[in-house]
Amino acid sequence: MKSLGIGLIGTGYMGKCHALAWNAVAPTFGDVARPRLVHLGEANEALARSKATELGFARASGDWRRVVEDPEVDLVSITTPNQFHAEMAIAALTAGKHVWCEKPMATSLADATAMLEAAEASGKVAALGYNYIQNPATRHMRRLIADGAIGTVNHVRVEMDEDFMADAAAPFGWKSEAASGYGALDDFAVHPLSLLTILVGPLASVVVDMAKPYAERPLASGGSRAVETHDIANILFRLQSGASGSLLVNRSAWGRKGRIAIQIFGSEGSLLYDQERMNELQLFQARGPAAEQGFRTILTGTVHPPYDRFIPAPGHGLGFNDLKVIEARELMRRIAGEPAHLIEFATGLRIERTVHAMARSHETRGWVDID
Amino acid sequence: MKSLGIGLIGTGYMGKCHALAWNAVAPTFGDVARPRLVHLGEANEALARSKATELGFARASGDWRRVVEDPEVDLVSITTPNQFHAEMAIAALTAGKHVWCEKPMATSLADATAMLEAAEASGKVAALGYNYIQNPATRHMRRLIADGAIGTVNHVRVEMDEDFMADAAAPFGWKSEAASGYGALDDFAVHPLSLLTILVGPLASVVVDMAKPYAERPLASGGSRAVETHDIANILFRLQSGASGSLLVNRSAWGRKGRIAIQIFGSEGSLLYDQERMNELQLFQARGPAAEQGFRTILTGTVHPPYDRFIPAPGHGLGFNDLKVIEARELMRRIAGEPAHLIEFATGLRIERTVHAMARSHETRGWVDID
Amino acid sequence: MKSLGIGLIGTGYMGKCHALAWNAVAPTFGDVARPRLVHLGEANEALARSKATELGFARASGDWRRVVEDPEVDLVSITTPNQFHAEMAIAALTAGKHVWCEKPMATSLADATAMLEAAEASGKVAALGYNYIQNPATRHMRRLIADGAIGTVNHVRVEMDEDFMADAAAPFGWKSEAASGYGALDDFAVHPLSLLTILVGPLASVVVDMAKPYAERPLASGGSRAVETHDIANILFRLQSGASGSLLVNRSAWGRKGRIAIQIFGSEGSLLYDQERMNELQLFQARGPAAEQGFRTILTGTVHPPYDRFIPAPGHGLGFNDLKVIEARELMRRIAGEPAHLIEFATGLRIERTVHAMARSHETRGWVDID
Amino acid sequence: MKSLGIGLIGTGYMGKCHALAWNAVAPTFGDVARPRLVHLGEANEALARSKATELGFARASGDWRRVVEDPEVDLVSITTPNQFHAEMAIAALTAGKHVWCEKPMATSLADATAMLEAAEASGKVAALGYNYIQNPATRHMRRLIADGAIGTVNHVRVEMDEDFMADAAAPFGWKSEAASGYGALDDFAVHPLSLLTILVGPLASVVVDMAKPYAERPLASGGSRAVETHDIANILFRLQSGASGSLLVNRSAWGRKGRIAIQIFGSEGSLLYDQERMNELQLFQARGPAAEQGFRTILTGTVHPPYDRFIPAPGHGLGFNDLKVIEARELMRRIAGEPAHLIEFATGLRIERTVHAMARSHETRGWVDID
Repeated sequence: MKSLGIGLIGTGYMGKCHALAWNAVAPTFGDVARPRLVHLGEANEALARSKATELGFARASGDWRRVVEDPEVDLVSITTPNQFHAEMAIAALTAGKHVWCEKPMATSLADATAMLEAAEASGKVAALGYNYIQNPATRHMRRLIADGAIGTVNHVRVEMDEDFMADAAAPFGWKSEAASGYGALDDFAVHPLSLLTILVGPLASVVVDMAKPYAERPLASGGSRAVETHDIANILFRLQSGASGSLLVNRSAWGRKGRIAIQIFGSEGSLLYDQERMNELQLFQARGPAAEQGFRTILTGTVHPPYDRFIPAPGHGLGFNDLKVIEARELMRRIAGEPAHLIEFATGLRIERTVHAMARSHETRGWVDID
Repeated sequence: MKSLGIGLIGTGYMGKCHALAWNAVAPTFGDVARPRLVHLGEANEALARSKATELGFARASGDWRRVVEDPEVDLVSITTPNQFHAEMAIAALTAGKHVWCEKPMATSLADATAMLEAAEASGKVAALGYNYIQNPATRHMRRLIADGAIGTVNHVRVEMDEDFMADAAAPFGWKSEAASGYGALDDFAVHPLSLLTILVGPLASVVVDMAKPYAERPLASGGSRAVETHDIANILFRLQSGASGSLLVNRSAWGRKGRIAIQIFGSEGSLLYDQERMNELQLFQARGPAAEQGFRTILTGTVHPPYDRFIPAPGHGLGFNDLKVIEARELMRRIAGEPAHLIEFATGLRIERTVHAMARSHETRGWVDID
Repeated sequence: MKSLGIGLIGTGYMGKCHALAWNAVAPTFGDVARPRLVHLGEANEALARSKATELGFARASGDWRRVVEDPEVDLVSITTPNQFHAEMAIAALTAGKHVWCEKPMATSLADATAMLEAAEASGKVAALGYNYIQNPATRHMRRLIADGAIGTVNHVRVEMDEDFMADAAAPFGWKSEAASGYGALDDFAVHPLSLLTILVGPLASVVVDMAKPYAERPLASGGSRAVETHDIANILFRLQSGASGSLLVNRSAWGRKGRIAIQIFGSEGSLLYDQERMNELQLFQARGPAAEQGFRTILTGTVHPPYDRFIPAPGHGLGFNDLKVIEARELMRRIAGEPAHLIEFATGLRIERTVHAMARSHETRGWVDID
Repeated sequence: MKSLGIGLIGTGYMGKCHALAWNAVAPTFGDVARPRLVHLGEANEALARSKATELGFARASGDWRRVVEDPEVDLVSITTPNQFHAEMAIAALTAGKHVWCEKPMATSLADATAMLEAAEASGKVAALGYNYIQNPATRHMRRLIADGAIGTVNHVRVEMDEDFMADAAAPFGWKSEAASGYGALDDFAVHPLSLLTILVGPLASVVVDMAKPYAERPLASGGSRAVETHDIANILFRLQSGASGSLLVNRSAWGRKGRIAIQIFGSEGSLLYDQERMNELQLFQARGPAAEQGFRTILTGTVHPPYDRFIPAPGHGLGFNDLKVIEARELMRRIAGEPAHLIEFATGLRIERTVHAMARSHETRGWVDID
């Protein structure tokens, strides 16, 4: 297998996370050629250079276009702020590079659509960085559902909550400005939607109520300013399968740190998951003696691939950053023409459309179909 | 204190539960005269007699009217099927008796309204059997909220789930017939609404999506029949305070046995509760060093009244039936003219109206205000 | 079935608990004649009278001997302080009454032995108030073990912890005096031993280390006094079956309120239980696909007898006091000559002997066999 | 800062884990020069070469001595089977290299002592791979104890359980041969001892009971063979501080996968931890209103260093392999002469001596002091 040449644009947290993944994928999996870390792009040239040394890249540029054009680069990791995704991804695809772009795709449906068109025109792999779907726990849930372990899914509940906006005394910031988007919907919704897509399929219709826990927030300069975004979004939905469900997201939920709680009910059992305890899942099966039935807490282990590539003993725990290593391996699989577990641009665009339908429902106060 | 003369109508589970409470209230609390168990009513005369002996009642009748008319009866416990509540409660109130009626009030808003009118005309105490609000854990949550322990409540989520309708293979029964009502909404909604009312106040508006996990169910005679009720109801709401929330109920949720999960988010903290672990609650407070913050699991104990009346040591656990004993004590307090923690007919009618608004929202597919 | 005449000696918490059980056993089970509450004994005559009214007893005496001698009394509930158990139980048995005596049996092995001899001579039923073994959860564990659900038991761990002695600043009290016994060993050990006896059989040998978390405690009068008892006892043991185990008890364990945590490991699975969550147990079975194995949280319900006699729906929760009602029913069963689930004096004496062996091991610093 | 030249001996799981750490330490921490991966040693030359490419090493040898002698190597990671540790570590130290050696130190006390002597003679850093102490959760526990958050520690319980030896039907293997050591004691005890050492200080004396869940195991060739090792070890101990405690280890505990459960009780609170949920800890403090006290579940986050170097948001979870990255950073800190959180050879030898004292106690059936 020819070694893959990697270009990376962006050196914030997600840039670091991609870099860690590219450094770790070969040692971890042991079945793939170690990628060459070729070219790092970052707006500031000096920063680009020092980060290249730190992250293990051979070259660095203060202009991202040089990364995209580098002939030794086969794939471009895009980890810049969302408003740059479209331009960079389209340029990379047009230059004949594979693309691994962080979610969400873009800041407008038009941009996201153009990205998909560029991907289709290029014939290259164009995938999004939906890491939660790579967890051996959620991958096992998918397998269980596919194997009929809980029968036909008929009801789904998802919650995603953090508390970074919970402090009423924190000064008004850009996340409370309308320019930043709708609020929790933008920050959170694509994550649970990626999981729903993989686990139970796409949404068909939604009704949404967004809410503001705090009508105004204090200004650093004194006084206060009306909050324009919604830290809470409450959504009822129907899946394309007809099953009903709910999605509740809250970025001002005191005490919640990284909660993505999923409940999936089927005709023969149920599945539970909480991202705050990402190394376990719970399975109830309506089988065997009634007196012995209960939710089973399954700790992920070597029998839940690809956990075994990280640790040879069960129950020892993967971390959030490990999910990116799995994603990198899936991407390499996809590039090699093998079956892979990824969200590519076509599915990504559907997720974006769902978020836009949610916003529309909030405005119209009624049900909205997702086309 | 004069001993209270008790009449009881109905000897099903709730009848037994009332009888246990009347037997236990004096030994448990030790601060009230032991009620006299005067007269038991049950449709079948022989059954009435044998049950009277078993439950400790002095007299028995096959006609409930004799219970209501018994001059030694001061209070009538009504535990018959819902369709009889109105007639019996109105008769008892008219006869000058206090009434303790199981929830829900009645099968129509008109009946429930008439019950409230009879109560107001009688000047007697007329309370509903909303036992979940009597749990020392939920009572402590109420106190915490009132004391500002979590600041101003800005978001609420409630789920109520059981699995008695989860078996797709179970034959079509009366609970799947439209004549039995809407389904999960009727079975469940009043319970979480009683808790919401006590904890965070009444609802102002709702949007509802009811769903059928199984379109049809097998007939015992062969073939199958279309299901007419909804085992699932998904509700978004706004409280009168403006706070947003959700109420999700499901009587076909495999693995859930008696779940009433409550999440209350405020400007300074959060509260969690799950009826399946009814002897604990969780409190998060955004206080003290950030590195020491977390959800605190509080086991109810002697510092959470009236737990101490049952057991002199903390963490030993009350049971579901104990809640009825507390309710009986509150009722006696109310009759004695003392402050009491109860849901009486006026508040009960508001709960019934909320349920009816929910049904209307499902039909109109839009938001409905609760008047 | 002739109605059983009940005498009760003692009106502290356990007296109240027995009274509640005698009031509730017939309504709860519905298959037994309601016992007659005949005679209440309490050292203070006036208190005896007011308590008799409260608890539902027909007669009251300031002298417990009148209870024992009352010809209408068939069974005597003994709930007085431990030092009175022997005299009262022997008197009651000699008078031809059945005895239900609270644990522990007595304050000396000699007394306990005399109690067993009196019971054997009388031919009457003589049972001890070991209520934890009556929990539908622990009864189900016993059934699971007997049915081979976890194979052959090879290792057992039990912890019993509360925190009523945890406050270092609390003044020196009688529980810190040597006259009160060894400390945690006396307060706690018989409870887990009753469960061990029922679940995995008796202990064969022990090695023990008792410890004092606080060498001295403040005196109310100023200064401090050396603590003479041990709030902590750590025990390694071997069962008669040869399996190894540990028993750790601590009455100064901050945060623990009513913990009795049991772990039982077998050749084909494991069982877990914690009294603080007394309505659930956990079962692991090494069966089925490895990827689906995990500890199953089983909520007790109608399939775990006799839960169904209390509540007709699963997962709603029994309370600590309910266990005494079950115990009363078992006792009535035993008196009627039916198979019953109880700890009688012979087994109780074995438990007492085990505690004494533990004390001896602490003193000798070596292993001690239990004869 | 001059870049550190790394030599690695061994390419099993721990070798891979060290390699991942050396690849990740600079990108993760961003405050240290990226180490140069210089030379990989592995018994098989061809394997050494292919692994070097995979893991990112520049050179490879089939003879470990060439790694130790390589002038560009500043530090040697030793991840070979335990019997090789002493020879390799002593050679590396003698050659003037720093050493990072996996635990346990050696297979005999004499070897371990010689290792310490070599380390002291060399003046180089010699650290052991005790990774559990690097978890931000356990590091926070250490800080809490040091800060007096739970007062004076007076009781400690540790359990370490897995189930890789639980299957009675698995054929007799080398882990059941006496040549492999004592059993669970060798496999497990050093891990909890490393945590105890860091959290509450060293042990002073022990009494031990080792046990065999299965007297014999089937032979692949038919028949069975007596088991010579102990899958279970039960230990009571006293710390040097005088506090009592227990350490229970079991490698045949069905359902346990990576459990290291710690309970630490102090005069003002308690701390709980379970490695199977390695991203949380529980803290109880006897402060504030009694009705609000409870165990607080603290999810590790950016306020628990060095979590923030991995992920900029709390509650997202580190993994087991991340602990090795933290350890590598600590080692680099130590080499740079900064304060570091590590277990070096002197403390490691004390841990080895404690394990040997445990074995002696099992043989003598009595208490043994650790000198």
